[in-house]
Amino acid sequence: MLHFTEEELAGRRAQAIALMEERGLDGLLMFRQESMFYLTGYDTFGFCFFQCLYLGADGRLALITRAPDLRQARNTSMIGDIRIWVDRDGATPATELKAMLSEFGCAGKTLGIEYEAYGLTARNGMAVNAELDGFCTLKDESELISELRVVKSPAELAYVRRAAELADDALAAAHALTGPGVFEGDILAAMQGAVFKGGGDYPGNEFIIGSGSDALLCRYFTGRRTLAEQDQLTLEFAGAYRHYHACMMRTIPVGPVGPVRDAQIDMHSACVEALEACREALRPGNIVGSVFDAHAGVMDRRGYRHARMNACGYSLGAVFAPIWMDFPMFYHGNPVEIRPGMVFFAHMILMDSEADLAMNVGETFIVTEDGNERLSRMPTDLVCR
Amino acid sequence: MLHFTEEELAGRRAQAIALMEERGLDGLLMFRQESMFYLTGYDTFGFCFFQCLYLGADGRLALITRAPDLRQARNTSMIGDIRIWVDRDGATPATELKAMLSEFGCAGKTLGIEYEAYGLTARNGMAVNAELDGFCTLKDESELISELRVVKSPAELAYVRRAAELADDALAAAHALTGPGVFEGDILAAMQGAVFKGGGDYPGNEFIIGSGSDALLCRYFTGRRTLAEQDQLTLEFAGAYRHYHACMMRTIPVGPVGPVRDAQIDMHSACVEALEACREALRPGNIVGSVFDAHAGVMDRRGYRHARMNACGYSLGAVFAPIWMDFPMFYHGNPVEIRPGMVFFAHMILMDSEADLAMNVGETFIVTEDGNERLSRMPTDLVCR
Repeated sequence: MLHFTEEELAGRRAQAIALMEERGLDGLLMFRQESMFYLTGYDTFGFCFFQCLYLGADGRLALITRAPDLRQARNTSMIGDIRIWVDRDGATPATELKAMLSEFGCAGKTLGIEYEAYGLTARNGMAVNAELDGFCTLKDESELISELRVVKSPAELAYVRRAAELADDALAAAHALTGPGVFEGDILAAMQGAVFKGGGDYPGNEFIIGSGSDALLCRYFTGRRTLAEQDQLTLEFAGAYRHYHACMMRTIPVGPVGPVRDAQIDMHSACVEALEACREALRPGNIVGSVFDAHAGVMDRRGYRHARMNACGYSLGAVFAPIWMDFPMFYHGNPVEIRPGMVFFAHMILMDSEADLAMNVGETFIVTEDGNERLSRMPTDLVCR
Repeated sequence: MLHFTEEELAGRRAQAIALMEERGLDGLLMFRQESMFYLTGYDTFGFCFFQCLYLGADGRLALITRAPDLRQARNTSMIGDIRIWVDRDGATPATELKAMLSEFGCAGKTLGIEYEAYGLTARNGMAVNAELDGFCTLKDESELISELRVVKSPAELAYVRRAAELADDALAAAHALTGPGVFEGDILAAMQGAVFKGGGDYPGNEFIIGSGSDALLCRYFTGRRTLAEQDQLTLEFAGAYRHYHACMMRTIPVGPVGPVRDAQIDMHSACVEALEACREALRPGNIVGSVFDAHAGVMDRRGYRHARMNACGYSLGAVFAPIWMDFPMFYHGNPVEIRPGMVFFAHMILMDSEADLAMNVGETFIVTEDGNERLSRMPTDLVCR
C-alpha cells in the first residue's frame, strides 16, 4: 500500500531528475532507505544488506535487492523493475549492479552515488568503486535527495501532525506513571505503547530514557532502573507516523521540594526562555545557524554556558534506523536558509555535570510563511512527580 | 554501569589480542557497535556518526567519538581513554584518528579494520583509507570479533535466557489479544510493552507484524491494519535483554474453520516437523549448513519447496540497529562448525504466494555439549483466534 498518491511520488522523482540534470548527472545510485521511501514508497529494513535504487535522468527506475525484499518492494512501493542479487562464489552484488547499469547504457556516463548511507558499508562501497572503476564516473551526491526531502508537502505535514499527536500521547502516559519507586521499563512501555496504539511506528532510534546520573545521557542504553525517592527522569522521544517523526524532550524532577528543586526550576526556566528565543529566530529569511545563536545567547546569559550543547536541534522527516536525526542541524554559522514547510526539533539541553543535574525541553515546529507553528498540545511548564 | 565483570571484559580483550597476533595484526580499528559493546560495555547508538574503538596488540585501548557520547562512554563502559573529534573546516574525523594512531606508534604497522559496519559508511571508509594511505597497512578484519562473539559465556547465556522469557511474554500478550476486528497496533503495543516491562530493550530491528497479504512479508513496514473476520497474522519478534536477543516467529490464523484452515494446519505441521529435523541436526560435530538441509528435506518432501526460503535461521547475540541477525546463517553448505554455547534462531518460513497464505514457526536454541536446548516455554502447537 502506498501512503502518498502516485502523482506525488512521480512529482518527487521529476524534481530529483531536474536536480540531477542541473548537476550534470546521468543517473543516481541510491543506498539511503530515506531516499527510496521518499521517491517510491519502498519501506524496509532490508538496507542492512546490499541494495541499490537506480534513477536515470531518463526516468528509468530499478531496484536491486535480496530475495526476502522482493515481495516487500512489491507490496510497499511503485517500483516495477525489481532485480534480485544472489550470493554466488566470488561474485559480489556490485557485479550484478554493474551488469544492470550496463544494460541501462550507463557506460561512460556520470552517476551520482549516496556514499553517506547506512545502507552502504565501507566494504560494499569499496566493492562498488572497484566494480565501476573505468566503467562510469561516480560523484558523491549523498545529500541530493535530502535537499528535496527537507521541505515537506501538505501530505507529508499531515503525517508529521499525526506524529506530534502521538508524541503528546506518549508524554501524557509518562506524566501519568512517573514517580518515586516506579520502574523505568513500565514508563517506556506506556510511552512506546501509546505510539503503537495510535497506529504509529518504531522511531528511527530508541526512546532515550535515563534517571539518576544517567539522566545526563542523550543516547539509549540497556539496563532500566527504578526511580528513587529523589530523582530526575530524562525522556527524549518521538511520535513516528508513516516514518515521519515529531520529537519531544523533557526532564521530570521526582521527589520532595528543596534546594535541588530550586536549581531545577531555574534550569527549566532558562530552557523555556531559550526555546522562545529559538522560535523568534525560526522563520523564513533567517539561516539555520541563527536558531542556535538564539539558544546560546539565552543559555550563556542565564549562566549555563558550561551545561549547554554546541547544537540545539535538527530537521525531522521520514527516516529509518539507526537515527531519527535529519539535516540540517542547528549549530553556529550553519548557512542553510529556513524555508516554509521545513520541520525542526529544537532541544534545549542542560546537562550540568558538577551538580549532576539534567534539565531538558524539546519541541517540534513546522516553519510557516512568517514564523513557525508549535505542534504539541502539552504545556512546557515544569511537571514534577 | 557494566553488565559484565571487569574480568570477563578483560578476558574477551585478551582473546581478541591473541587472535590479532595470530593474524599478524598490530592493532584493530573497530566500527561495529557490537564489537565495542562486547569488549568494553560501551553502549550507544552514536555509531550513526563517525566513531572508532582502537585495540592494540599491546593492550592499548582508546575510543574516538563525538562530544555527545563522551558521558555515554564514561557511564556505560570501562574505556579510560576517550577522545572527542570536533567538526572543523576541511578536517575529517579520519584526520584525528590518524593523529591518535600516530601517537600510538602505528606508523608502518598492520592494522585490522572493520569495513563491514553500519558505523562506517562508504564515505567515512573512503576518508579513512585516504588518510591512512602510506601511513599503515589496513586489512579487512570485519569478522574477527564476531568469531569470538558467536560462542557465549555463562554470563551471556543468562541474558539470552532472560531475553527468551521476554519473547514468551510477548507471544502470550499476542495470543491474549489477537482476533477478528483487533487493531495490529494494539497487539504490537502489548508485545513490545511486555519486553519493556520486563526490563528488556528495543530489538535490533522492528518486530515484524503483518496480516492479510502482508502476512507474507518478513520485514517491518508502516501502516497498521485491523484484522478481518478471516485473516492471518504473522509475527516475528525478539525478547532483547542487555541487547542479547531471543527470537520467535508465529503465524496466527484468524477466523472460521474451513478449507483455508485445513491448508494452514498442513503448513503448520510441516513447519513443526522441519523444526524438529533442524533440532536433530543442531549439535556439535555438524556444520551449520546441515541445519538448513534438514529444514529443506522436510519442506520439499511435504510439497512446500515453492514456499520455503533458501535460509532458515541464523546466530543471535548482542547486536544493534538496524538488524538483529547475526552470523553464521543456516544455508546450504555453510561450513561453520556448530559449537556448544552458540545461540541460534531457527525459523521455518512458508510463504505461499499462490494461495496467499503464510505459516511460520521460529524458535531460539542454545547449543549444548550433545545437542541443543529449546528456550521457549510456549508450545509450538497451532494457535488460532
